[in-house]
Order: sequence, then structure tokens, then C-alpha cells
Amino acid sequence: MGQPLVRYIAKRGEEPRWGVVFGDAVRPLTTRAATMSELLASGSRFNPGRGAGLPLKRVQILSPVTPPCQIVCQGKNYDDHIRETGSDPAQKSFNLFFQKATSSLAPPVGDLQRPSGVKLLDYEIELGLVIGRAIRGPLKLEKQDLARYIAGLVIGNDISARDIQVPQGQWFKGKSFRGFCPVGPVFYHTTAGDLDRLAELRLELRVNDSVRQQALAGQMIFAPHETLSELSTIMDLEPGDLILTGTPAGVSMQVKQGLKTRLAQAFLPPSKLWPAFVKMQLERPYLNDGDQITASIRTDDGAIDLGMQELTVKAAASG
Amino acid sequence: MGQPLVRYIAKRGEEPRWGVVFGDAVRPLTTRAATMSELLASGSRFNPGRGAGLPLKRVQILSPVTPPCQIVCQGKNYDDHIRETGSDPAQKSFNLFFQKATSSLAPPVGDLQRPSGVKLLDYEIELGLVIGRAIRGPLKLEKQDLARYIAGLVIGNDISARDIQVPQGQWFKGKSFRGFCPVGPVFYHTTAGDLDRLAELRLELRVNDSVRQQALAGQMIFAPHETLSELSTIMDLEPGDLILTGTPAGVSMQVKQGLKTRLAQAFLPPSKLWPAFVKMQLERPYLNDGDQITASIRTDDGAIDLGMQELTVKAAASG
Repeated sequence: MGQPLVRYIAKRGEEPRWGVVFGDAVRPLTTRAATMSELLASGSRFNPGRGAGLPLKRVQILSPVTPPCQIVCQGKNYDDHIRETGSDPAQKSFNLFFQKATSSLAPPVGDLQRPSGVKLLDYEIELGLVIGRAIRGPLKLEKQDLARYIAGLVIGNDISARDIQVPQGQWFKGKSFRGFCPVGPVFYHTTAGDLDRLAELRLELRVNDSVRQQALAGQMIFAPHETLSELSTIMDLEPGDLILTGTPAGVSMQVKQGLKTRLAQAFLPPSKLWPAFVKMQLERPYLNDGDQITASIRTDDGAIDLGMQELTVKAAASG
Repeated sequence: MGQPLVRYIAKRGEEPRWGVVFGDAVRPLTTRAATMSELLASGSRFNPGRGAGLPLKRVQILSPVTPPCQIVCQGKNYDDHIRETGSDPAQKSFNLFFQKATSSLAPPVGDLQRPSGVKLLDYEIELGLVIGRAIRGPLKLEKQDLARYIAGLVIGNDISARDIQVPQGQWFKGKSFRGFCPVGPVFYHTTAGDLDRLAELRLELRVNDSVRQQALAGQMIFAPHETLSELSTIMDLEPGDLILTGTPAGVSMQVKQGLKTRLAQAFLPPSKLWPAFVKMQLERPYLNDGDQITASIRTDDGAIDLGMQELTVKAAASG
């Protein structure tokens, strides 16, 4: 069995600490690790002090994934999500990667700030893999090798400004605003046995109590061992880096496949096409200021539980 | 006047050093900075020891930009390059950003390894800006503010596997292979006066002595102060991060605008469209094994000179 860890601030003005979650309380670790990679270097099993610990409700929970790190994301990794965004999963022949800026990392509880001018603010619940061991050359991994390279699991929310992401073609900008990657609350430090159950993890995201996304991690098109194998042929990964494994169906954005869409994309100039896209999308239930987003990832028996994200959408500060 | 610095290894087995270039020689600095950000923290003017120094020819030059850092790239930032890739510059209304993986950083001299299976290997000379001061919130920069945030200039080569980049839509993978970002040789540590002359920098790239790319940095659509201003509204940048400012016309890839292309993109399934794209592109002069790429960026009077990249394309190691 793995351990549910959190990174938190106990009192305003204090340094962030790491702790182990027991029920509704957190017991602090003695480590002074400032970053995820320092935490991972400090040990493989974490022993908190005894005692009742602090009530989780009374501490400020931070993202357990910390800079410096890379955030590598998979796109279109669930069949139903490919369909809802207007593509045909049968045509998907490759593992799609992109990056989010490190400074998009944000706490899993609190406000989600809408950047000034963004109209189509969307959510994407994703299972996050935290790298535990450096990868600096090609590897051919099988499922049972995952425990060697993955240190743990987190909830990631790949917040997206669709009115920037889609018209600008490359997704980096529309997905990289500060605050666009809430991570946590729990860093579930995994054992090999936990990773055997990865496919059983259930992702669920609600907006104001209506379930928008629900799926099992086992529905991914490219499973984590395939993804790490391919990434290893391209780039280096370091302990503490984050892989977001794609989102299932149920995001706000919906694009209809069909002749009309294809003709519009082929023949409308961008100055007509994208305002029309935004106008059509505005009929969909994108995130409004004041909306509450809750997101959880756990096995149905509760043995592995990555906690609950609770975000409130907030208007951009003017100016 | 700025200073031309290099990072190099004097003898096999020795640690990398920093030095100042004088003609054909390098005089070592006393700093033991292991990374670009440590170098920038160590001083604002670098005083090498006296003496003749080491002949540049006899040292191994490394990328002056070092991990950990972010590589943020601009796409489609020169009119003629937009045209040659099949788009209309009049329709470009935004500054296009994407990232390359940090592990794509490579020395500016030596072999450029073709990844196994890549057929359409392409070059892109780009002016690189090295960030000198952290940017952690929105800024409105004018040209004359650049010196506060840019520590220096480098040559960057945004090597691209077009047969991955284009069919897969998101550019990160096809531009992020290890070795796909040769940087240097010179880190030109700039003064405000140098940055006033930024528009006069001439970029030139040759393949086997035939000039393929030649342009002035002043032809950029979004100038560096505009780019940093926009990035500051999205993400944090740290000292030592690299901004690649886009490539001018003359890359191997050429895509014709027109009805036929639009219809193909709208109606051919990906399984037909992309093999046809690769087949057509194979008639273009992409990089072949053994090709020599040389790239320089300098003002015509030689006052600012970022040195010369010299790369030889090498077949992938089999397996």
C-alpha cells in the first residue's frame, strides 16, 4: 500500500511542509525538502511523527508538484473525448504530446482565476504521473516496470482557454496561464501493487454538483508504460516531472464532425472562422464566474484515493 | 559593447568552463558556475585572466544555455516563412508560442543525429534571447526596457522532424528530440547599446555552402519587447530561460497554398493525407546524412557576432 502525502502551509507566513494524510488529519514529516524532487531524494518511505496531527481543513494545501519541473501532457487519449472534439478515434495513430508552462502549477483548493478576456474557460480532469527516476535514453517498458519510474499519482486539471487554444493551433499558450494546472491535493506515493491497479482508478469531475466527466483510467488509448517508453526515445525526464495522461469525455467544448465543419475550416478565413467558433461554443456550458469545480480520482474500494480538488472560478482582476 | 562568452571543455574529462572569446582564442573565467543561471548570478561583467588563452579550435564548445531551463519558441514570426509554409501572413493576428524539451539542447558544433525513422529532417536558424531577470507578472515593455530582462543573445537552431511535427499537429514532439536544439557557440552578453541594434542582426544558414536562409532580425513580426510583454501575462520566466524568436524563409519544407491543399486537408483521411504530404515533401532538399549546416548571426559591421554553428547530419544509430 502506498502513502497519501500532502504539501501544505500550517500557518500563514510559515514555510511549506510535507505530511502524511490519516483520515481528516495530516501528520508532518521531518524532511525539509523544498521541492518534489528533493522529497523523492530524501527517502522511499515516509514516517511522520506520532500524535493526532493537524486537521486537514485548517491547513492550506499546495500543489505537491513543484518547480523546477516539466509538465508533459497527452492529448486525445480517450476515445469519447476525441469524438466530442470532432475527430474520429479510429484515425488516431499516434500519442499526442504537448507542454504546459511550469508556472501554471496551482493549489488544488481555492480560486481558479479567469485570465482577462478569456471567454471559453474549460476544465480537463487528468491522472498525473510523477516521475521518480531519471529517464535519459530509450527504454522499452512493460506494465510491471512502471514502479521503477513512477513515484506517485496526482489529480491534474488541464485548465484550457479554448478561445486561445483552438484558434492559435498550438495549445501551449491557451493551456499555460498562471493557475491553469491545479495539482493535488494528494501525492499518492505508490508501490508496485498500487500501479497494478492503475486501470481501476475512476476519474470524476463535477461543476456545481452536476457530473461532467467520469471514466476509468483503463480507458486510456496509450497506457502509461507505452507513453513513458515513447517519451524515453525523445526526451529526458527527471524526478519530479509530471506527465498528464489526457482527459476523458465531458469537457465544455464540443465540436461537431461533418461536412459543414470541414468546409468552414477549409474555406473560411481565420478572421471569420474563429469568431464563428467562439460564438457557437458560447452556447455550451463553459465555466462561469462563481462555478464550483470538484474533481476526484480513486479506486471504487477507496484503497487508492488521490483526494478532492475544490476550485471556484473567479473573474480576472481588471487591468 | 557586450562580451562574447563560451562554455567549453578544455580537455576530455574536465568540467565545463566559461570563457571570454578574443579573436581565435578563449580566456577562461574563474567562475565555477555550472549553469547559465549561476553564471548570470555571479556578475554582470566578466573579467578573464590575462595571457594568450586557449585556441578555440582546440576546445570542445558546448551549448551556453543549460538545463534546468525552459525553451519557449515563437512560430511563424517572419512573413516569408509564413508564405512558404502555405499560410497568409495577412491572416496572422497572434504571437504563436510552443515549447521544445530542455533535453533537446545540444552543442553548436559536431554531429546532428537523425532520429531513427525520421525522413523529413529540417533546420530553422533563430535568434535566441537569454532571460537575465525573472519575470513573474505582467509587464508592458518598450524597446528600451529590453536590457533589463535580456542577458544576452545566442544562435538557436530549431531542428524539426517535419514528418512528425506536421501530421501530429502539436509541434512539441517533432521538435523536441535529443539534439534538436543546437545553441551557441557564443553567448553574447549584451549591453543596452547592443540591444538597440537587434534589428540589424543578420541571420544566415547554409547547407553545404548553399545559402538557404538569410534575413535581418528586424523582419520579425513580433519584436522581442512585444513577445516578452505578452509572455509576461501568461507565464513566469527565469534567468537562463531561452526564447527562440522564429525562423525566416528558406527552410526545406514548402507547402503550396491553394484549393487542392485545402480540399485535401478537409476531405482526405489522415491515413491518406499524411503519407501524401511526406511523399511530396521528399522531393524537397531536406537534410541528408553527411550534409554540413553552418549558421551565423552578426551585424554586418561585425560589432556583434554570435559565432558560427557547424553541424554534420549523421544517420541514426540503428536499433
